[in-house]
Amino acid sequence: MNFHSMSVDQLRTTQDDLRKRYEVLRAAGLKLDLTRGKPAPDQLDLSNEMLSLPGQTYTSPDGTDCRNYGGVTGLPGLRAIFGELLGTGADRTLALGNASLQIMHDITVHSLLGGNPDSDKPWSAEPIKFLCPAPGYDRHFGITERYGIEMITVPMNPDGPDVDACAALTAADPSIKGMWLVPTYSNPTGYSVSEEVARKLVAMPAAADFRIYWDNAYAVHTLVERAPEPLPILDLAAEAGNPNRVYVFGSTSKITFAGAGVAFFASSKTNLDWFTKNVSVSTIGPDKLNQLRHLMFLRDADGVRELMARHRELIAPKFAKVLEILEDRLADSKIASWTHPEGGYFISLDVIDGTAKRTIELAKDAGIALTAAGSTFPYKKDPRDENIRLAPTFPSIDELATAMDGVATCALLAATEVLLGSE
Amino acid sequence: MNFHSMSVDQLRTTQDDLRKRYEVLRAAGLKLDLTRGKPAPDQLDLSNEMLSLPGQTYTSPDGTDCRNYGGVTGLPGLRAIFGELLGTGADRTLALGNASLQIMHDITVHSLLGGNPDSDKPWSAEPIKFLCPAPGYDRHFGITERYGIEMITVPMNPDGPDVDACAALTAADPSIKGMWLVPTYSNPTGYSVSEEVARKLVAMPAAADFRIYWDNAYAVHTLVERAPEPLPILDLAAEAGNPNRVYVFGSTSKITFAGAGVAFFASSKTNLDWFTKNVSVSTIGPDKLNQLRHLMFLRDADGVRELMARHRELIAPKFAKVLEILEDRLADSKIASWTHPEGGYFISLDVIDGTAKRTIELAKDAGIALTAAGSTFPYKKDPRDENIRLAPTFPSIDELATAMDGVATCALLAATEVLLGSE
Repeated sequence: MNFHSMSVDQLRTTQDDLRKRYEVLRAAGLKLDLTRGKPAPDQLDLSNEMLSLPGQTYTSPDGTDCRNYGGVTGLPGLRAIFGELLGTGADRTLALGNASLQIMHDITVHSLLGGNPDSDKPWSAEPIKFLCPAPGYDRHFGITERYGIEMITVPMNPDGPDVDACAALTAADPSIKGMWLVPTYSNPTGYSVSEEVARKLVAMPAAADFRIYWDNAYAVHTLVERAPEPLPILDLAAEAGNPNRVYVFGSTSKITFAGAGVAFFASSKTNLDWFTKNVSVSTIGPDKLNQLRHLMFLRDADGVRELMARHRELIAPKFAKVLEILEDRLADSKIASWTHPEGGYFISLDVIDGTAKRTIELAKDAGIALTAAGSTFPYKKDPRDENIRLAPTFPSIDELATAMDGVATCALLAATEVLLGSE
Repeated sequence: MNFHSMSVDQLRTTQDDLRKRYEVLRAAGLKLDLTRGKPAPDQLDLSNEMLSLPGQTYTSPDGTDCRNYGGVTGLPGLRAIFGELLGTGADRTLALGNASLQIMHDITVHSLLGGNPDSDKPWSAEPIKFLCPAPGYDRHFGITERYGIEMITVPMNPDGPDVDACAALTAADPSIKGMWLVPTYSNPTGYSVSEEVARKLVAMPAAADFRIYWDNAYAVHTLVERAPEPLPILDLAAEAGNPNRVYVFGSTSKITFAGAGVAFFASSKTNLDWFTKNVSVSTIGPDKLNQLRHLMFLRDADGVRELMARHRELIAPKFAKVLEILEDRLADSKIASWTHPEGGYFISLDVIDGTAKRTIELAKDAGIALTAAGSTFPYKKDPRDENIRLAPTFPSIDELATAMDGVATCALLAATEVLLGSE
């Protein structure tokens, strides 16, 4: 029954029932973790062949001895595969180390200390700002927060960030230098940027050295039959007259081994030249043996797609289970809404205003760890205290069902507290 | 015969002979490369067993699934091995990514943008300076140059940097925030820091946030029977009342695979806490599978020592060959001096003042690539234009002999030009 239509007495009775149910939950002594978007062991098993690669080969198809120093741009074969999957093309796509986050960080740091190719001074010369579609990815916000870059929250809609709001902001304020964005199956909503929004984002008036961090982390991570074609975002930006506006990132972390994957960076030639010049100061090159290992295992873009289909078989039932429990336990009460992602690693759950923190706290006391309240917003401050990020992949399906049933109880209980408190 | 004692006529005759010899050299159409300190393929072969590791194992001895995310400090087993070899202890030693240079870079950047634990403001708030023992490592100087940090050259002596000069500088100038140093078999001289110099370096008066970048890249890379015991530099610094002064770096790049190794960072607990907090902003963790691969292959510190003995068998004859040719071709003329390293990857050759650049140019025209003139000094400016870095490891011994004979001819010819020009 809709909690908002209940009488106080009905709510009190419901709350009593939920309290009892919660005490049973707490007594069960659970220890479950839904905090991070980690692949489960059975997903990692899909790539175990890589554990013995490259075997006795160490020369890449282009003739490089991958054991030795050299080559900051990565193996051509791997650049070709992800140039295709990211829609950026091999020539504009670099294969790098094991963390795309590190690339985003390093680019930010280089821009702060020296500016980018379109800057007339270092970003650190004056206070600067980033647009942050939210709910979004906490580690993105962590980088900007670390360096004192002011974060401006913009709404994340089902077709991407509220681009009119973005355009109004960037047109009026040249100190807005960057924008975080997960364009496909966004973290945590699962929303994807439409072509229309993308075209507006690359065309909107903004500072010359404004950059969109197009973190296409889930480009091929579909829960449906086939991943969407990637938007040719670098071409769109060039057509709009802003060829240097977009930095594209990708990674095999949730394709092969999380932590031992290969990260990708794609952009205009001007940006790539700037990037490789900077990166040459700090490293002699990425781990080419790990790149060779990936090239041998993945073979080509279809090899990646086939592997992702096997991931899908493993995780689609987990997403379905979460949605089923949310529907069963929360739909009638009207105290929550949630996304129905077709890909990615998360489900975004919005509970009644002012109850996300309390729900997470209740769950924690019952041994169910959820991502910390507010994490999906800049400065970890969810203005309405409503968003909870659910990460269904890592637990087994039984653990997941237990955890989600518990989360639902916590959300309902927290809702009754607020509704009764505000009577 | 000593060129300095020759009559002008004798010098002219000698020069004519050398010109003829140089023309023959040039006509040979060589294509030899002595530029970088790269391991030769037969050295890399020593670690080929790693190409199939970790095999079907993916769990480290401490129970970590190395395929998944997590753990910014690295595998305990590997930290123990290099904690022993670097004299820093497992608890103070982190196992990280594939490039120690990246760690040095990142630490510098974090200090510029936020200061280190002993800074009262970011390094970038005011112009700062680094001490640069020279000749030294060009990539060190590249980092400080990139960020506009003023480099002050101090002499590198056989027992380490001129520590009295260093102390006088740091005592007088609190804007000196750092110092580059390769303490064992230094690049390019092969000199090692004595305990006496080390004790003075950690005790000398300096800014509270002054740091020594103790890049122990060649800690175990000996050409003699046994590598020297590492100086317990972190303990010495703590004893001297400056526990946070030293950052220790190490790497397996020239132990296992040059671009696919593991880098190490060791320091005080205060510095490590600061570092891991910073590094957590930019990465979810290093490649633990590559660490596991190394742990399985190297086993323990003795495993590393045994492997280094096999490297020594391969490269000691190359160093001996270079020294033999230098002695044969250059000793009598008194136009050059050179170091006799007991380890490391380089020999430092000093030619007559004002002829290093010319020698390198002549060699280049004859198809012998040497490290660019001046590279071993800050701003690539060798004040006396005398130093040439020789990297004997990569070429085969026959190529090396051909190249060195050519270099000797070029050095002699350049010397006659200067001596005749200055008559």
